[in-house]
Amino acid sequence: MRLATVRVDGGTRAAVGDDGGWVLLDETDAQELIGADGWRERAAAALRHPARDALDPSAFAVPMPRPAKILCCGLNYRDHIVETGRAVPEHPTLFAKFADTLTGPTDEIRTHDTAKLDWEAELAVVIGAEVHRAGKGEAGDAILGYAVSNDISMRDWQQRTLQWLQGKAFDATTPIGPFVVTADAIDPKAGLRITCAVDGETVQDGNTRELVFDAADLVAYVSQITRLRPGDIILTGTPGGVALGMDDPRWLHDGDVVVTAIEGIGELRNTIRVEQA
Amino acid sequence: MRLATVRVDGGTRAAVGDDGGWVLLDETDAQELIGADGWRERAAAALRHPARDALDPSAFAVPMPRPAKILCCGLNYRDHIVETGRAVPEHPTLFAKFADTLTGPTDEIRTHDTAKLDWEAELAVVIGAEVHRAGKGEAGDAILGYAVSNDISMRDWQQRTLQWLQGKAFDATTPIGPFVVTADAIDPKAGLRITCAVDGETVQDGNTRELVFDAADLVAYVSQITRLRPGDIILTGTPGGVALGMDDPRWLHDGDVVVTAIEGIGELRNTIRVEQA
Repeated sequence: MRLATVRVDGGTRAAVGDDGGWVLLDETDAQELIGADGWRERAAAALRHPARDALDPSAFAVPMPRPAKILCCGLNYRDHIVETGRAVPEHPTLFAKFADTLTGPTDEIRTHDTAKLDWEAELAVVIGAEVHRAGKGEAGDAILGYAVSNDISMRDWQQRTLQWLQGKAFDATTPIGPFVVTADAIDPKAGLRITCAVDGETVQDGNTRELVFDAADLVAYVSQITRLRPGDIILTGTPGGVALGMDDPRWLHDGDVVVTAIEGIGELRNTIRVEQA
Repeated sequence: MRLATVRVDGGTRAAVGDDGGWVLLDETDAQELIGADGWRERAAAALRHPARDALDPSAFAVPMPRPAKILCCGLNYRDHIVETGRAVPEHPTLFAKFADTLTGPTDEIRTHDTAKLDWEAELAVVIGAEVHRAGKGEAGDAILGYAVSNDISMRDWQQRTLQWLQGKAFDATTPIGPFVVTADAIDPKAGLRITCAVDGETVQDGNTRELVFDAADLVAYVSQITRLRPGDIILTGTPGGVALGMDDPRWLHDGDVVVTAIEGIGELRNTIRVEQA
């Protein structure tokens, strides 16, 4: 099952879909939907309806627009760890983003005053149930599903200080979507190809089976620290191939088109807009 | 003027106060109050009323219970920078907390599985108006006021990886309050003594005039990255004297009482509870 927030008539609506297309539901967005009693049964019933909409990619908005918590794991693919010159970690490296950091799957990414703009294709884990101090089994059960994201990074801001946040949390610079594929329909541990292409050139080509800490590991670990609730998000880190890892980095510039894709989920397609002072 | 969220009859109410005592208002909390039209006039009128309540310290809750953004600045007092062995920074070092990280000014601080629990007395800046990509003047005008906070840190978790978040974001471990003193009534740049005492022994004794980046600097800097809104919070860093800086660190233990105070605002008094696995 796929869950989306779809732009309709100047507002948004929750939508449920599968290979046959989409059905709009009454809720304003997918986060409101998953907070409603009996939503799974209602969504499944909607998918038995024969009339489906084929939606244009530009119709999709941020699936979960109000996460109270977005945790991001750095250094979580073996090949990316190698390119940063670090050792495979014993614990997840965690930093945060804000709900305002997210933007839609086909939106322009507008940033400013950066000369080192980089990409980071990432698998996003969406939480579906409250989870606190959980073991791996309970943590896995709390996963609603998965989406595609790109942790677009202002490396010059990121590297100003020891803490990465400021290069990772510019408003509306982290695309996510195009929708959430529920956990019963997809298994990142079994191996999903994850790619990033810039102006048609593939720059990242990894596989989610290479994650050092898998989705349930991360949910369990984060839940030792803080309670997660439906709509919260964990970004799981990026595979090798970022500009920062290149001998002669190819930074993103105004007008570049970044396509981020994960096998079995879908793709993001975002044009970069950089305003320089 | 002082703004508080006060525990009443199993719920909470916004309250406004001054040296003469407190008056309860209709709103559920101080964050709802500052989002209401004409709240300043209404609060000022309430303070002209002669009947005031004297409130017990335990009546005060987290003043702003739903900040969408909590930004924290590390390494911002010259003496603390020296004790960490670092150079005075050119840019603020920023990390985040969550609304769930906050706890009340007299609440027990419950944490778990840490052997290196430390204190960090901090001046908290509370945002009162939306502010985005602002200069220092506009940034200063967006400050609602100031409160006392303590960035209680699980140093063992903080030092597991390069990013500090996980040692700083355990649920309900950052006390804040006891209320917000509005910016017209207090000026941290003019110098406010900030102290932390553990079981009666003063361990930190700094002054807010020693901030490398002052409150308006931090609001202006953060606003280049992300839009701040009423109720959002910036923690401004801690002066010297943390356990981590000691040759033989005196970590916090179960039962320790931490008193954090800022001249002209008030104090937090929190008992530490540590559950070890």
